[in-house]
Amino acid sequence: MAIAKAEDYEIYSLSFQYGQRHSCEIQAAGKVAEKMGVKKHLVICLDFSGIGGSALTADIDVPKGREINMSEQNIPVTYVPARNTIFLSYALSWAEVLEADSIFIGVNAVDYSGYPDCRPEFITAFEQMANLATKAGVEGKFQIKIKTPLIKLTKAEIILKGITLGVDYGITHSCYDPAPGGAACGQCDSCLLRKKGFQKAGVPDPVLYI
Amino acid sequence: MAIAKAEDYEIYSLSFQYGQRHSCEIQAAGKVAEKMGVKKHLVICLDFSGIGGSALTADIDVPKGREINMSEQNIPVTYVPARNTIFLSYALSWAEVLEADSIFIGVNAVDYSGYPDCRPEFITAFEQMANLATKAGVEGKFQIKIKTPLIKLTKAEIILKGITLGVDYGITHSCYDPAPGGAACGQCDSCLLRKKGFQKAGVPDPVLYI
Repeated sequence: MAIAKAEDYEIYSLSFQYGQRHSCEIQAAGKVAEKMGVKKHLVICLDFSGIGGSALTADIDVPKGREINMSEQNIPVTYVPARNTIFLSYALSWAEVLEADSIFIGVNAVDYSGYPDCRPEFITAFEQMANLATKAGVEGKFQIKIKTPLIKLTKAEIILKGITLGVDYGITHSCYDPAPGGAACGQCDSCLLRKKGFQKAGVPDPVLYI
Repeated sequence: MAIAKAEDYEIYSLSFQYGQRHSCEIQAAGKVAEKMGVKKHLVICLDFSGIGGSALTADIDVPKGREINMSEQNIPVTYVPARNTIFLSYALSWAEVLEADSIFIGVNAVDYSGYPDCRPEFITAFEQMANLATKAGVEGKFQIKIKTPLIKLTKAEIILKGITLGVDYGITHSCYDPAPGGAACGQCDSCLLRKKGFQKAGVPDPVLYI
């Protein structure tokens, strides 16, 4: 969002409530959106209850303290089936109504921890499909672009980029399985990657860990 | 669904409640699913309230009694932005969990009345994206296929195909703007296309019109 703002985009931001364990990320996103001065922040409720299949939404334990091997091809249980496809489809729908030609998504392929829908080839295929799916594409008004400015950065590079752009990391949230008060667990994949990123960037992480 | 059943697929069916005027189609879909003996019929609630932009979900009138010109390139106000993309994304998510390799969708390009997301090129692009988006595709377990057996049939051919397969059209629903009791309006694009289809097929339409 900070990158889009620095590029002078008028921003409409989108969060998803999908029964995730870490729904406090929605409040955090709202705070960030407000601070960035977005035109509108929309929260869409998704219904994964009948689908299941992920540790983030179903009754499966979130893995803790495991060694994350970036080269491994195993997709973790925290993978939500086709989640980013659904997120981007809603964004596409709203983009059509707003006549917005760019959709930003903060996926990251370097530290991607095995999610197929965070890879550049997925994003490219989605963009091609998007321009065939929509009125704007068919009528030739404009081409929709899926922008992924973080996709090839390391977590440390992302942290530093944000610092440069004035991001307040104290109001952000990353943990998959926070304590009831919202404190991060420090042990899930998401916490481990975040902590490693701050450490490598040489910047203190202002978030509260249990 | 009748075609998938005739091809011996084990069927999991999916309907979407998305604030459409014609939500009685959900009950109709449930009846059809039951009669076809599906393994499970899932209804997913979609949230288009913040997005708007269509006569089917927002406060815009449904056009009535208009001349439908199949060759025109105008996309009608009943088009819901990126709707089929969102439908197919949920189907993809469920297919991953079920390890189902085929997703059937009843889109129709001949009588498509101007919807970009009913065209073969959209379906092909979605299928390519789907195989990059998912665990099954990445791990090479199986390729997901999007099947559109009705895409090139006329409405009359669809009616006759259904008759051959024993479809009970009396429990189906097509109208975009039904009366409170569920009777079809007879004047919206969907009713006009349905009526023309039955007429050309030489089969009586058992549905109740106001």
